[in-house]
Amino acid sequence: MSAPFPNTHLQQAMRADARQIIESSIQAVLPDQAVRRALQNRTFPGRVLLIAAGKAAWRMADAASQCLGKQITAGVVVTKYGHVQGPISNVTCYEGGHPVPDQNSFLGTRAALALLRDLTEQDTILFLLSGGGSALFELPLIPSDQLQDITNQLLACGADIVEINIIRKRLSQVKGGRFAQLCAPARVFSVVLSDILGDPLDMIASGPACPDRSTCQEAREIAARYHLCLSGEARQLLDRETPKALENVESHVVGSVRELCTAASSVCRSLGYQPLLLTDLLCCQAREAGSFLASVARSHSDTAVPLAFLAGGETVVRLTGSGMGGRNQELALAAAHGIAGLPNVLIFSLGSDGTDGPTDAAGGIVDGSTAGRLAETGLSIRQALDNNDAYHALERTDGLIITGPTGTNVNDMSVVLIRPNCTQ
Amino acid sequence: MSAPFPNTHLQQAMRADARQIIESSIQAVLPDQAVRRALQNRTFPGRVLLIAAGKAAWRMADAASQCLGKQITAGVVVTKYGHVQGPISNVTCYEGGHPVPDQNSFLGTRAALALLRDLTEQDTILFLLSGGGSALFELPLIPSDQLQDITNQLLACGADIVEINIIRKRLSQVKGGRFAQLCAPARVFSVVLSDILGDPLDMIASGPACPDRSTCQEAREIAARYHLCLSGEARQLLDRETPKALENVESHVVGSVRELCTAASSVCRSLGYQPLLLTDLLCCQAREAGSFLASVARSHSDTAVPLAFLAGGETVVRLTGSGMGGRNQELALAAAHGIAGLPNVLIFSLGSDGTDGPTDAAGGIVDGSTAGRLAETGLSIRQALDNNDAYHALERTDGLIITGPTGTNVNDMSVVLIRPNCTQ
Repeated sequence: MSAPFPNTHLQQAMRADARQIIESSIQAVLPDQAVRRALQNRTFPGRVLLIAAGKAAWRMADAASQCLGKQITAGVVVTKYGHVQGPISNVTCYEGGHPVPDQNSFLGTRAALALLRDLTEQDTILFLLSGGGSALFELPLIPSDQLQDITNQLLACGADIVEINIIRKRLSQVKGGRFAQLCAPARVFSVVLSDILGDPLDMIASGPACPDRSTCQEAREIAARYHLCLSGEARQLLDRETPKALENVESHVVGSVRELCTAASSVCRSLGYQPLLLTDLLCCQAREAGSFLASVARSHSDTAVPLAFLAGGETVVRLTGSGMGGRNQELALAAAHGIAGLPNVLIFSLGSDGTDGPTDAAGGIVDGSTAGRLAETGLSIRQALDNNDAYHALERTDGLIITGPTGTNVNDMSVVLIRPNCTQ
Repeated sequence: MSAPFPNTHLQQAMRADARQIIESSIQAVLPDQAVRRALQNRTFPGRVLLIAAGKAAWRMADAASQCLGKQITAGVVVTKYGHVQGPISNVTCYEGGHPVPDQNSFLGTRAALALLRDLTEQDTILFLLSGGGSALFELPLIPSDQLQDITNQLLACGADIVEINIIRKRLSQVKGGRFAQLCAPARVFSVVLSDILGDPLDMIASGPACPDRSTCQEAREIAARYHLCLSGEARQLLDRETPKALENVESHVVGSVRELCTAASSVCRSLGYQPLLLTDLLCCQAREAGSFLASVARSHSDTAVPLAFLAGGETVVRLTGSGMGGRNQELALAAAHGIAGLPNVLIFSLGSDGTDGPTDAAGGIVDGSTAGRLAETGLSIRQALDNNDAYHALERTDGLIITGPTGTNVNDMSVVLIRPNCTQ
């Protein structure tokens, strides 16, 4: 059915475009770059105290230190074991437990809070937060084994993550905006590297510098609904309200999937494509998202100008087979079916951290020739998808994107590139 | 979690917009309207002979007769039993078998071919084709029971529709472009009401006026592959080539889902929305398409100008439950989950024929309040979707679109409307 491909030159050119879009947009959401951009042209009147927590804490703190130098008079980094890569001037680095906090997490957090003495309105707390901060930046108001017991009770009775957080915020010295409250009267300049779709600031690391919308009433209702067994101490804490407004905080979300897509859009534009960001909240099934994007591509394949459609988010895979792959590879392979035979369309999808599923690939890249080339090897796209074996199908068709670990993690990005079809 | 809805006024206004988009766009793809538009400002130098075949043949012929009057000197309509609604001046109407052709289908087709005598280059065959034309416009070159036997053999051995058509075109006097060949030297002005995604002219009614891309070689290969048992007569016919070029044909696809979406885009624009047609070839799972469109809506919900995203096509439903619904209702309900709490977003999806699944609804319409309202009745969207029971969930939330039969059938359309959120 598919036409021959006289213009593999076009496909090669589009693959080169894809490479450039991937490299430059990942670059833009590396923790260090993101921090640098957030601090660009920014001046702070008084002392700057640095507190960084999360898996990317060291990299973010190191970048901030390079930007601000001696203006940072003191600082604390709390990150995951093995993530400290060297000394940072004026900053003490701690490593702690993740995903379950341990005494070293608490030690680091206590050291951070110890910085918050004798602060004035002129001072700034430069707060650098990244994924994993919920475990790494924590100091409970009750003994930690009690906290663990309550968490276990909640998990066992099927409470959802929102309910769990409502309880846990009230049992913590720092979560639910309380950290920022402790910083007053100093200003908090918060730079958040987002790893949750939609960048909900109250969810990322349980929002140490974000006003909490939940109420004591809700917390009591949850405790009653699940018949939580609580100490008198814990029960009293449920009645202590979290801050509902924080006037000393300025938050910047950086390195989110939206930033990734925005950066990719810019590269597309510089390459001559007219970019359109469809969504940065994609969350449907990978295979179906691939079909949807292929439909978009096919409908616009007669375009007179180069077009790029972008979608950021995190799809899910429905496991029906025992093959090898990841959600981005599955999305790309499904899309290959829908664009079969189109000489001027290319679709790729990748995880920004450089890994997609349990594979060495970051994602997949396909064009109008992929389906035909795969068929020549005796394999159908449907078979490969039903067996969740996108990896090997893409491997046969030059379709794996290999980047290695990128040093950031801001969800996935899928891109459709369409150039005018000169062969028509 | 969802905010209260101070601006149900906004939601009501958007529902009114939706109604207008639905009414006007369906109007634009009614067979009569579509024919009128195709004939608008069109003049024919000599005689016009009308040949109309398919389920909408009578309506199309009647509209053409109203446009061209006595210029139509003779004509034949071949449509499905019960579909002739009255006499048309100078035109003879036949009713025949569908989906399996019968002697009356052949009789009507023979009468149509009988019109093609003494034609000159000045004459025009106005050929009006609609869905069902494959059975209704047919005159086999072999006895019909032999044709039926070959079709049965092909179906039994798992041949696909493309393979079946390659064989059948060669056994027909009219399919695969042969009808247009018989019309020469007269011009064929073909108006095709498309009911297949992507409007493949060679597929719709097996392309009586469309050059055939398949070859005798392919036909012989299929016969060999499936060990077809053929009479000598049939075997010889496989060697008779179909026309590869038809210079006397001008084809107009009307009333396709693209035309439906284009009409809807125009209405959107007239209502102040900036429309974007995402695709007219949507073909993924209904539920996932709903999630995808909701992601698009949510990402653009902070827009400063009214936006409309449109998608045409035909999704599929994965049956996991025993409830009541259709693909459009399922798409809309799935979308309701993704836009929960957004006061300024509305999504609807409907079948252009006015029926969606085995229900009396044409589709579903949801907004940011749907999920909350449904929860108040004790039902979750996930439950309803898992039980394929979108109908009853939408019924509880003012979410059914009821149009009754519309008189056309050009697949489905889904629309996302977003207005600036004045409450922010």
